Amino acid sequence: MAVTLHVCTTCRAGQPVPEGALPPGARLHEALRAGDLPEGVTIRPVECLSACSQGCAVALSAPGRWTYVYGRLNPETDAPAILAGAAAYAGAADGIVPWRERPEIFRKQSLARIPPLEAP
Amino acid sequence: MAVTLHVCTTCRAGQPVPEGALPPGARLHEALRAGDLPEGVTIRPVECLSACSQGCAVALSAPGRWTYVYGRLNPETDAPAILAGAAAYAGAADGIVPWRERPEIFRKQSLARIPPLEAP
Repeated sequence: MAVTLHVCTTCRAGQPVPEGALPPGARLHEALRAGDLPEGVTIRPVECLSACSQGCAVALSAPGRWTYVYGRLNPETDAPAILAGAAAYAGAADGIVPWRERPEIFRKQSLARIPPLEAP
Repeated sequence: MAVTLHVCTTCRAGQPVPEGALPPGARLHEALRAGDLPEGVTIRPVECLSACSQGCAVALSAPGRWTYVYGRLNPETDAPAILAGAAAYAGAADGIVPWRERPEIFRKQSLARIPPLEAP
């Protein structure tokens, strides 16, 4: 299943960003790109996921599946767990990963989930 | 454009719900159904949008468009503005409503927006 991991690259995570420094969202994007990309997962940078007060943020989506949005992510430490969660989502037949198999950050830092669009 | 307005009907909005009373999410759903449904918009109840700490919550989505999630909605007062915002989303050629034409609750209470899935 072709899964997209959207990463907000402009997120400041509620903090001032020193001139010339990368915002936290861009650092998270770099950390994810430097990690082991799971099979079937494409990382896609996005300018603003509109979760500014709850950043850093990512969203997982795929055709016909629930979309999941996660926030309050740490660009320095959370990339491996995000990639593990994306792998589990890609690997689940319907994209619904059993609760206990989700990384802790996915269990505790959900911002939203949105049902798939039904076939027209 | 066929637009879906997802409404979390189980949301407790962080409050205890007295026995026998409807949770705030169900009250919001009722208020939306009682309002003037914009052309092209379908209201779809959802059991949990996983925005529990920021409820009540709704999500607007349509094929090929950005999805928008809004939270901290008041079931007693916000239904007309939500329906107006859904009408603007349905009426915009690409689903992107100019900022100033969005209801204030949509400008200030965004939980997330997610890009459309690109054609495979």
